[in-house]
Amino acid sequence: MILCDIGNTSLHFQDGNRYYKESADLFDPVSVHGDVHYISVNAGLDPILHSLGNWADLSDHVAWEKYYETMGIDRIMACEAIDNGIIIDAGSAITVDIVKDGLFEGGFIYPGAEAMQKCYSDISERLDYSFNFELDLDKMPKNSRDAVSYGYLRLLYGEVIRHDAPIYLTGGDARSLQALFPSAKVDETLIFKGMQKTIEKAG
Amino acid sequence: MILCDIGNTSLHFQDGNRYYKESADLFDPVSVHGDVHYISVNAGLDPILHSLGNWADLSDHVAWEKYYETMGIDRIMACEAIDNGIIIDAGSAITVDIVKDGLFEGGFIYPGAEAMQKCYSDISERLDYSFNFELDLDKMPKNSRDAVSYGYLRLLYGEVIRHDAPIYLTGGDARSLQALFPSAKVDETLIFKGMQKTIEKAG
Repeated sequence: MILCDIGNTSLHFQDGNRYYKESADLFDPVSVHGDVHYISVNAGLDPILHSLGNWADLSDHVAWEKYYETMGIDRIMACEAIDNGIIIDAGSAITVDIVKDGLFEGGFIYPGAEAMQKCYSDISERLDYSFNFELDLDKMPKNSRDAVSYGYLRLLYGEVIRHDAPIYLTGGDARSLQALFPSAKVDETLIFKGMQKTIEKAG
Repeated sequence: MILCDIGNTSLHFQDGNRYYKESADLFDPVSVHGDVHYISVNAGLDPILHSLGNWADLSDHVAWEKYYETMGIDRIMACEAIDNGIIIDAGSAITVDIVKDGLFEGGFIYPGAEAMQKCYSDISERLDYSFNFELDLDKMPKNSRDAVSYGYLRLLYGEVIRHDAPIYLTGGDARSLQALFPSAKVDETLIFKGMQKTIEKAG
């Protein structure tokens, strides 16, 4: 059984122990012959996927009453993967979700590093810095690069640790956030784990 | 004596008890006949201002060793206005600076509301929301608008209150942040107060 997590730019696959990705622009779903269980935030692929007998949409098996209507299915699957903790999924956006005793407690959305850097540089070219992920979190900044890095990273850090829960890091930028959360468990397969559990529950 | 705080889009004036602003694009400094003490973050106006005998640049009288080289002169003047507290200057960027016993302790820079809203909507049209400034700060969000608002506002709030200091709100967006910081003192003339003190110190 193949698992597929479809985003706007890439399709991420798990096929047994093999993980790989394909470009959303170039990929042809017809080329896959095995059974695929997928989740998708990319509405453009819906018509072709619905027309193919071997692609099964896992969103049909989600206990939606635990979540909310406009919540991304990728966030839901990451939540399904754990029983207790705070999940940071760092991509183009950073989603932060809390799960307690298997229940979704709520979550928030923060810009990803690339978008936030652009946000600062759009305000003023004087704020055009690459973030310092090695920033001293205990010290108020006295230089421009750290002032901007602190605004982005320290505020995220403060909110995450406030919840005093085990931290899970996933998504393409998980590794760069590890400097901030050294105790976090980095798990790039969290969404696939949630998909697997959803399939098992559905029987 | 006239005070003038020059930004990239506007010039803010204090003339006695009268406050007014002019557009940076349309304003001609030659049209002012009295003595003006000014600060400026708008380098484009430097040549003409330096050529005029009645415009005096207050940055020459700043105790720069208390601050840092690339720090905006407007932030410095707001810091000079108080002895103890945390200053939130909310404009196209939000600067947050801490002053303790008259000394600058450091500060950080966060995007202003308009820039941050654009940042979210650039990531995805699904994140294109106006922020909910009436957000419940004690509750993890379970809807998209609050998830985005929380990411922007709750993180700023958490960092500000962590410092447990009197809060001063200034800048064009001060009023909208007042819902978050009900105990804050809103003072739109903070920069002028710092300029006044700097003039007095300089003699």
